Amino acid sequence: MIIDCHGHYTTAPAAHTAWREQQIAAWQAGTTPPAYPSISDDEIRETIETSQLRLMDERGIDVTLFSPRASAMAHHVGDAAVSLEWSRRCNDLVHRVTTLFPDRFVGVSQLPQSPGADIRGSVDELRRCVEELGFVGCNLNPDPSGGHWTSPALTDRSWYPFYEAMVELDVPAMVHVSASATPVFHATGAYYINADTTAFMQLLQGTLFADLPELRLVIPHGGERCPTTGAGTGDWPTCSGSPCRGHRHGQRLLRHLRLPPAGHRPAARRHRHRERPLRLRDGGCGARHRPAHRSPLRRHPPLRGSRVREGALDEERRAAVFEGNVRRVYPRLDALLTAGAR
Amino acid sequence: MIIDCHGHYTTAPAAHTAWREQQIAAWQAGTTPPAYPSISDDEIRETIETSQLRLMDERGIDVTLFSPRASAMAHHVGDAAVSLEWSRRCNDLVHRVTTLFPDRFVGVSQLPQSPGADIRGSVDELRRCVEELGFVGCNLNPDPSGGHWTSPALTDRSWYPFYEAMVELDVPAMVHVSASATPVFHATGAYYINADTTAFMQLLQGTLFADLPELRLVIPHGGERCPTTGAGTGDWPTCSGSPCRGHRHGQRLLRHLRLPPAGHRPAARRHRHRERPLRLRDGGCGARHRPAHRSPLRRHPPLRGSRVREGALDEERRAAVFEGNVRRVYPRLDALLTAGAR
Repeated sequence: MIIDCHGHYTTAPAAHTAWREQQIAAWQAGTTPPAYPSISDDEIRETIETSQLRLMDERGIDVTLFSPRASAMAHHVGDAAVSLEWSRRCNDLVHRVTTLFPDRFVGVSQLPQSPGADIRGSVDELRRCVEELGFVGCNLNPDPSGGHWTSPALTDRSWYPFYEAMVELDVPAMVHVSASATPVFHATGAYYINADTTAFMQLLQGTLFADLPELRLVIPHGGERCPTTGAGTGDWPTCSGSPCRGHRHGQRLLRHLRLPPAGHRPAARRHRHRERPLRLRDGGCGARHRPAHRSPLRRHPPLRGSRVREGALDEERRAAVFEGNVRRVYPRLDALLTAGAR
Repeated sequence: MIIDCHGHYTTAPAAHTAWREQQIAAWQAGTTPPAYPSISDDEIRETIETSQLRLMDERGIDVTLFSPRASAMAHHVGDAAVSLEWSRRCNDLVHRVTTLFPDRFVGVSQLPQSPGADIRGSVDELRRCVEELGFVGCNLNPDPSGGHWTSPALTDRSWYPFYEAMVELDVPAMVHVSASATPVFHATGAYYINADTTAFMQLLQGTLFADLPELRLVIPHGGERCPTTGAGTGDWPTCSGSPCRGHRHGQRLLRHLRLPPAGHRPAARRHRHRERPLRLRDGGCGARHRPAHRSPLRRHPPLRGSRVREGALDEERRAAVFEGNVRRVYPRLDALLTAGAR
């Protein structure tokens, strides 16, 4: 089985997207948005079958962890109430996809974040998505301001109530910004990439995983320029920048972070197989590199696919990279698959 | 000859750094800073001989393009007058290094940028450094606010007066931020890297090099996650994202940009030799990859060291990567070396 841990509903029905425009216009005008439109199952089926599902079949992907379109989350637009209403509509739509294609899609939640809003506001929606809609993870935006970076670092205590809910519900979060609200940052080319790098460095500097050893985060888009992944370069402040504490802390961090590769070129992929620490299936393929002097794993035993040499993965490692690692990071997905419900 | 195009005076004498503290304190207090201290030639010699020069000798580097310490430029501190005074002191100090070690160091300028200040304010200092101090390039900060990104993109017309001065003086600029003024961005691990990526995407989206075909910029730290360099990954908006215009524009851009690699591990270096488009000596080594379908070069003929295959560079290509390419991007350096003044 091949599981893609990172899919977004980029082809949502036009009526859904049009309603969002109306919602924003109503907020700007201080009026009430119109009722959310009726969208038929056939409309949803068509948007999936002609794009995401077709591509999954072409690429041999069996199951995709599916969340609303990241760039359309736009947490910086409107206020917390606008974000909550939009998040619920988006999550409900994803839930309909998972109901229509129960063998192929498993839901991952958008959160009703908003600049300056207490992250506690996102706990209820996470709980609803996990407990009522069967979702297995969430997207967490480290910068709901859309590029102005007005929130404290992810290691700040203000985020902890949400992390504690994640631990209680046993779901990971993918760290993922939404659209860029400033013209200086190209959305995917700069802002997405910068955010992933920024988040990694915040985690490396803080004590988050020491405080919450059960927490699991996924950094997407290849793990970006993270200093331990091999994509970074020599003048990065790698773990050894602060030799003892830094290295140990780096090792602890890597037990909790999942860094899926996004490289598609064979050369880049080979290089990454040698260098990257932890891999999930994310549109490319990947495998974990076991760092030298890795301290004994406590809570999380080693992901499979470690010590991959240049060239093809053997069958066992391939199975770990394509399926096993993801199932371990997303235990609720594993439970669904084990129960045969999907 | 081996030329390092990217050195900073990170070990400046303590009296110089202490004066900066006094200057900032005076600005905050609304008073006048004390006189700049007297620093002896011996003090300067010691700071160079025990660190930068020692490392250059160990690594076989003959000449370093030397600018003030990037993180200490701190354009966000004080106002334009504070930044001007500090820049002049820093540039004068670098000039003393180049005078004490004329065969080993060539000056590159700090600019008196300041958030919201007109970039025209930096033209005079650039001119002074080039015409009076013999400098051959400059560092240009795309975000003088220190992480708040309050300046328009580098392709905005407001930057053009400075670019026109660069063209007139025939010097390139290295795009380089200074210290992070926000705790969300780790200075070198996130902010430096993010800034390089951000700048590259701005250049890819704008028409700067079409407007000013003589302009030359250098993106440091390995070129970061730039979509055409091979460090980026498949889900980047590569040039082919917008196939025709994007690709052609990408090619034009690459004629003007120099992306030095910063990888030190042999594996990373080999990978980069295959993938990266343009190389300068920057603490590592590098060579330019000639993109397929490269349009004919007009102003800038191809840099040497192209089409490097995996493994060692042959002698001709090595000479281009270590020396020739840098001399072509920095014509004033080339003139100095040709004249034997250094």
